[in-house]
Amino acid sequence: MATKTPAEAPASKAAPDAKRRSERSRRAIYEAALALVTEVGYGKVTIEGIAARAGVGKQTIYRWWSSKAEVLLEAFIDLGEQAAEAAGGGEAFASLPDTGDVAADLKGVLRATVDELLDRKYDAPYRALAAEGVVNRELSEKFVQQLLEPGLKLYVARIEAAQAAGQIREDLDPRIAMEFFVSPLAQRWLQGTGPLTHEYTDKIVDYALHGLAPR
Amino acid sequence: MATKTPAEAPASKAAPDAKRRSERSRRAIYEAALALVTEVGYGKVTIEGIAARAGVGKQTIYRWWSSKAEVLLEAFIDLGEQAAEAAGGGEAFASLPDTGDVAADLKGVLRATVDELLDRKYDAPYRALAAEGVVNRELSEKFVQQLLEPGLKLYVARIEAAQAAGQIREDLDPRIAMEFFVSPLAQRWLQGTGPLTHEYTDKIVDYALHGLAPR
Repeated sequence: MATKTPAEAPASKAAPDAKRRSERSRRAIYEAALALVTEVGYGKVTIEGIAARAGVGKQTIYRWWSSKAEVLLEAFIDLGEQAAEAAGGGEAFASLPDTGDVAADLKGVLRATVDELLDRKYDAPYRALAAEGVVNRELSEKFVQQLLEPGLKLYVARIEAAQAAGQIREDLDPRIAMEFFVSPLAQRWLQGTGPLTHEYTDKIVDYALHGLAPR
Repeated sequence: MATKTPAEAPASKAAPDAKRRSERSRRAIYEAALALVTEVGYGKVTIEGIAARAGVGKQTIYRWWSSKAEVLLEAFIDLGEQAAEAAGGGEAFASLPDTGDVAADLKGVLRATVDELLDRKYDAPYRALAAEGVVNRELSEKFVQQLLEPGLKLYVARIEAAQAAGQIREDLDPRIAMEFFVSPLAQRWLQGTGPLTHEYTDKIVDYALHGLAPR
């Protein structure tokens, strides 16, 4: 990330007290950004509004981030990391499970993704960022690079492992194969073209692996 | 459609001159709505703004539609129908080709869809409607029902024909199978997760039909 975050630049040089204050400010800014996007929508969120709600000066925000898009993206990524830590999993973006059974592993991951997408805590900020990304190319690039890509790379890695294990054909582009698992879910969530259930994602995995044509 | 459109209610009862005036107004309103959403974005489009630009009274708009969302959706659907007529195809939503070769037929349809999604004429209004749909449930339902569903049903019908012809497994839910052809494309277009090319959609069709696992 090009932006300086409190975890890197200022805090590391600061005394313990200043470091604690920085960390408190950072949390307050994240929470303010997430609350505002839920309450007023992305379009009406401003750096000034986030600063006022977080009880910090707007220079504090500008020292660490250069736009509201960057604040919101980091706040949302942080929300995911907090949830992963609370669930005892450590890092949010580590790797997908590999038990040697690619179908079972992908079904497990997609069921968890359905649960997350239906969690109201994530819904408003994630929808606000996704909606803005559809019409705002600059935000879209950051959204993909910082939020989607790390997750998509895990699918690619899991598919490559399945290719090495002979469970997925070696001549397939894993980057495209991966989309059969993530895109149907993404479209249902973004466009409301159907319900998100575990039964649905289980079928997606079976259909994709075995193919639609008779064997 | 629940809304009265000029093609139904008022024009049919009117004299030829009034009918021509209605049709001219309707065209002017569609064009104003599409131009405004491109120029200022969905959030800033108002019924008043559309009326002013179209050179009609706002009561003319309220007589036929009850919200800007309905005007925009119809304008966008009309744009697609005009394009289909110009291409000599008649109705935009008729049926997918059925030459007996489901792979070739789907590849043809998806290549044409890629070309349409890359056409700048559609880009701004379609993105504006899609983005608003992500955060606006009411618009989203209309968007899906009036704009996406008619197209998705054609895929379902083509898959059912392929099931009857033994080219797609009969035990599959065609509604879910269909998503392998439309959702990857939709996600790349909505979220910018990859380029849209004919080579890409050809692969999507082959991977989906033959499956990712070795046969």
